[in-house]
Amino acid sequence: MNIVLIGSGNVATHLAKALVAKAENVVQVYSQNLLNASLLAQQTNAEAINQLSEVDQTADLYIISVRDDAIEHVASALKNVEGLVIHTSGTTDISAIKNYTARAGVFYPLQTFSKVKEVSFDHIPLCIEASNINDLEILKQLAEKLSDQVYEIDGEKRKALHLAAVFACNFPNHLYALANQFLIENGLDFNIIRPLIAETADKVMDNLPEKVQTGPAVRGDESTMNKHLGLLESQPELQNIYQTLSKSIKLIPK
Amino acid sequence: MNIVLIGSGNVATHLAKALVAKAENVVQVYSQNLLNASLLAQQTNAEAINQLSEVDQTADLYIISVRDDAIEHVASALKNVEGLVIHTSGTTDISAIKNYTARAGVFYPLQTFSKVKEVSFDHIPLCIEASNINDLEILKQLAEKLSDQVYEIDGEKRKALHLAAVFACNFPNHLYALANQFLIENGLDFNIIRPLIAETADKVMDNLPEKVQTGPAVRGDESTMNKHLGLLESQPELQNIYQTLSKSIKLIPK
Repeated sequence: MNIVLIGSGNVATHLAKALVAKAENVVQVYSQNLLNASLLAQQTNAEAINQLSEVDQTADLYIISVRDDAIEHVASALKNVEGLVIHTSGTTDISAIKNYTARAGVFYPLQTFSKVKEVSFDHIPLCIEASNINDLEILKQLAEKLSDQVYEIDGEKRKALHLAAVFACNFPNHLYALANQFLIENGLDFNIIRPLIAETADKVMDNLPEKVQTGPAVRGDESTMNKHLGLLESQPELQNIYQTLSKSIKLIPK
Repeated sequence: MNIVLIGSGNVATHLAKALVAKAENVVQVYSQNLLNASLLAQQTNAEAINQLSEVDQTADLYIISVRDDAIEHVASALKNVEGLVIHTSGTTDISAIKNYTARAGVFYPLQTFSKVKEVSFDHIPLCIEASNINDLEILKQLAEKLSDQVYEIDGEKRKALHLAAVFACNFPNHLYALANQFLIENGLDFNIIRPLIAETADKVMDNLPEKVQTGPAVRGDESTMNKHLGLLESQPELQNIYQTLSKSIKLIPK
């Protein structure tokens, strides 16, 4: 399949590498910034472009992997292509593309991508959607080449999933960061807490989180919670987070 | 070393098994509930007791692994023993024991223990403290038998560490639970989000969390955040958590 990739951010980069590794043919990489386009194009043996007017009109698949608020603009520039046009966004409706082209789709990888870490696509959940059944089949075959976890999910569910991912990924990572800041203030190193973070995530691989909750809030241990709030006396922001989450823990049915 | 274990909860159970695996001699297991004492005593080839007056007065080490608010009561019952008396609590001062016996210590394993999951002690951070240098050396040798991560940490730092652990373990697990509840409400399965949770924790094994934060809040993507708050319209509790943590993410220096 000849693929044009629009975008050069984290998702575009990891996806491009995974496609090339499965012998898919990335023919062009577009970025507003030609240097960024070139860096990714080199790794995928593609042509780098920085004008949407230069996009190859004869490709089989166009992957739009740009900021959510730029998807529609890119889609409008692809209104004359005959290939399948998809985006990789968790929160954007398929209509952002379907308004401009009959063959529209979504290909949302549910994972957190950073420049600093390679990630294998083998087990990444890939959430696909298409405006017609033939294109859904095309996306399914492509997705199954990359991962053993392919889900056909409509826009509403995809948006719910994206929000759940904020709770399961972005917020926990931020709590790790708050823990780190507090450790530094107390002359301790983040290393000491890494095994705990690993085990906490590992525990929910085979169990539901509601069943393995630990800590003072779930035990109703007010004495320890009061000691903790005392330690945070000079940090009302952290006190507020501590109280908000502890209160929420007590409300969850076990 | 002859060891008396006071307690039969999660920490006591996992610690007892780890000690026996390293050929330490657990001679007695105490619990108020004789059945609980017996269950753990069987696994460690020890005597089960449910009266503190029956505690063997000649052991080398007494490990108090009970609820924080019961530690002092147990310590007072051990005031005539000559062996070393330690507790396993993150938040309790060593004085809870030192008030009753000259040879006092702390042995705090920084990990989350559940009945549902075995856990290896090999890399668990063990935080030790003792009221004299000889006993600190005894605890260090014992700890190093169990784990390659042994830290000498005073009470103040240990309490800070315990609080950091709430942020890095208890709160993230609760956010996994909230994600699960939201997935269920939307007809989705927790399985779909497990790879994301695993990768989020894995990322901070080699990086600091501040450096790998992703998601709408750190990007300042107000449009996506507003969409998310809209999805949570009927759940003010979740909206509040979403806003509190998103605001906090924006405050963290990157």
